[in-house]
Amino acid sequence: MTWLDLPADTGFGPDNLPYGVFSTPGTSPRTGVAIGDRVLDLAAATHDPVHATGSLNAFMARGPAAWAAVRSRLQELIGDAAHRGDVEPHLLPQDAVTMHLPVEVADYVDFYSSRHHAENLGRILRPDGEPLPPNWTHLPIGYHGRAGTVRVSGTPVVRPSGQRKAPRDDVPTFGPTQRLDIEAEVGFVVGMPSTLGEPVPLRAFPDHVFGACLVNDWSARDLQSWEYVPLGPFLGKSFLTSVSPWVVPLAALEAARVNPPPRDHPLVPYLDDETHPWGLDITLEVRLNGERISRPPFGSMYWTPAQQLAHLTANGAALRTGDLFASGTVSGPERHQRGSLIELSWNGRKPLPLADGSTRTFLEDGDVVTISASAPGPVGTRIGFGEVIGQVLRAR
Amino acid sequence: MTWLDLPADTGFGPDNLPYGVFSTPGTSPRTGVAIGDRVLDLAAATHDPVHATGSLNAFMARGPAAWAAVRSRLQELIGDAAHRGDVEPHLLPQDAVTMHLPVEVADYVDFYSSRHHAENLGRILRPDGEPLPPNWTHLPIGYHGRAGTVRVSGTPVVRPSGQRKAPRDDVPTFGPTQRLDIEAEVGFVVGMPSTLGEPVPLRAFPDHVFGACLVNDWSARDLQSWEYVPLGPFLGKSFLTSVSPWVVPLAALEAARVNPPPRDHPLVPYLDDETHPWGLDITLEVRLNGERISRPPFGSMYWTPAQQLAHLTANGAALRTGDLFASGTVSGPERHQRGSLIELSWNGRKPLPLADGSTRTFLEDGDVVTISASAPGPVGTRIGFGEVIGQVLRAR
Repeated sequence: MTWLDLPADTGFGPDNLPYGVFSTPGTSPRTGVAIGDRVLDLAAATHDPVHATGSLNAFMARGPAAWAAVRSRLQELIGDAAHRGDVEPHLLPQDAVTMHLPVEVADYVDFYSSRHHAENLGRILRPDGEPLPPNWTHLPIGYHGRAGTVRVSGTPVVRPSGQRKAPRDDVPTFGPTQRLDIEAEVGFVVGMPSTLGEPVPLRAFPDHVFGACLVNDWSARDLQSWEYVPLGPFLGKSFLTSVSPWVVPLAALEAARVNPPPRDHPLVPYLDDETHPWGLDITLEVRLNGERISRPPFGSMYWTPAQQLAHLTANGAALRTGDLFASGTVSGPERHQRGSLIELSWNGRKPLPLADGSTRTFLEDGDVVTISASAPGPVGTRIGFGEVIGQVLRAR
Repeated sequence: MTWLDLPADTGFGPDNLPYGVFSTPGTSPRTGVAIGDRVLDLAAATHDPVHATGSLNAFMARGPAAWAAVRSRLQELIGDAAHRGDVEPHLLPQDAVTMHLPVEVADYVDFYSSRHHAENLGRILRPDGEPLPPNWTHLPIGYHGRAGTVRVSGTPVVRPSGQRKAPRDDVPTFGPTQRLDIEAEVGFVVGMPSTLGEPVPLRAFPDHVFGACLVNDWSARDLQSWEYVPLGPFLGKSFLTSVSPWVVPLAALEAARVNPPPRDHPLVPYLDDETHPWGLDITLEVRLNGERISRPPFGSMYWTPAQQLAHLTANGAALRTGDLFASGTVSGPERHQRGSLIELSWNGRKPLPLADGSTRTFLEDGDVVTISASAPGPVGTRIGFGEVIGQVLRAR
């Protein structure tokens, strides 16, 4: 319910109200809320300096009661036409603002929680072995990525260089990656910190997590495959990770909660989520130069974000405001549900046919990749995530 | 040369001047410089607010010319007795101050650059294979660690819990680690950031790196061995990483520069350091409950910190002020030069005999581990690194 005139089927209706950081020419970055095709200048509308800090961190650090109070007040402001005169001066067209990285990222962790993705990668890279490593069904595998190279949607993707060595080569060579890929993921942003030494149980997930965004974890597969044994991905990932500018509040995803897929065997207690299922029915869409190439279903993820958070802290590791953890590539069981080109082109062996008659294995210079997503909201509404977009530029 | 009365053989003489962050009861953390057994309150002595921010980051961000100017001024102040009256009121006994984490850590990267360590681990964990993975002699293998759990020396080491599965077990169990270990390392702190997309060449190492400290990368070997395939170490490391409170300026290590060991084969150009060797003759010392158990030689590292930095940025990854990158466990060729208990006890199979008649495989509750180090300074002086210390507390 709102007095605003919203575009038909907007994903940014009154049940969503995602937060971002924006600026207009000559002004400082500040917090905004997306409503339809507009952004509400929260700093100006509320006079609360927490919204003028240039990132969501200070607001997130206030905790879940403050998040709920602001959300409730926002729904009142846009719901009751009596507030129209106060609110309207602070609404700007989204296409007139510049979006910034919404969060000062503290630590960035990337998981590997889609069974279909992990099995596909296993079949591609280790065709003679079991598709899943033995630990995969027992814990959500993850690793730390580079927080300092997380950037907002729109940041150009300069093709990275690095060492790569094909099995037939005697020695590695250095040069631009020839296997630049995407990973379509959903990321979760920590608002409330935790104490060193104290694990965060599954039930405390909404006490710590502020919201969700989209993540494209750009990957240079040739760099990655040469470097990753035994300590994991490093330069194959650290050149850039792109996130969507809007952070969807966890409260907006209540109607999207679903049970995760059945598990192969009983889980150790800290991961047993029977009473706290946090599967989320979010459908992603991946477009390459405007053409849809995949629709990965987040609801098919084996491990939920609540399990990821419980695992991440099971050893007592502390959370900080601004921590970002991403799901890993979201891939469903069908070919058109795969969230990476290494899967869509089966490591280049089955090039992906495109509408213009060309094909694609990995990304070419000039390619534009757009990831968007939506989830069911209350009573037939739709919760949109906006987009995370990036264009590949040739290597320097 | 100084008018101060310094303890004999101090590692904190006028050629060192390491920076740290300290407080006294009822005062805010601020920057200090260690001189002998005292600390100079730099904020009070200089009236520069950059030294009152509670971390070295703002000062480091001023860049190498500013670092050199402050160092030169400090040497003048403590070198010329004419300044005694101005300086003396700002000297405090080190044992009367509390030391804090010196740096707000941005990204933390841990390398694996000791050939002896990597070969020992290979022989222990993969006895039937080659001790080194094929990429090891071509690039400095590294991975991102958890910046948010880097803490200052003295922070208690609460024994972490997690999943572990021995080969003979059918399923994993959750509980306190039974294989808690140390890793004696040297860390390097980035002062000056770099631009996304622009690699930092070997020659630019001193333009970006502010100084060095000691690192104890506490490791839960049983958690690590169950989790680390295929994405690398995660919870086995992320519960705590301890650093020494004093950051030794790179300028204090000029006399310690040595050539790294000969390499097995020619390196790709961005790692070829023939004209920029940054081996450093730093000798570490590891004590367990006061007894020296190892003296790892940093000069034996195959990959230098300059090569690590060049590698870390070769794909265009940006540096930020406060980035910390550590060497990986420092181990020399001899048994008494190994920097971890997994090596010293050969994975528990050859328990380490201690002076009191007991033996040790991995750490027991109550154990205190102290890592210290020193390097040659100009004309017979000694550059000390102070200590990084931690006591193991029983699991919660």
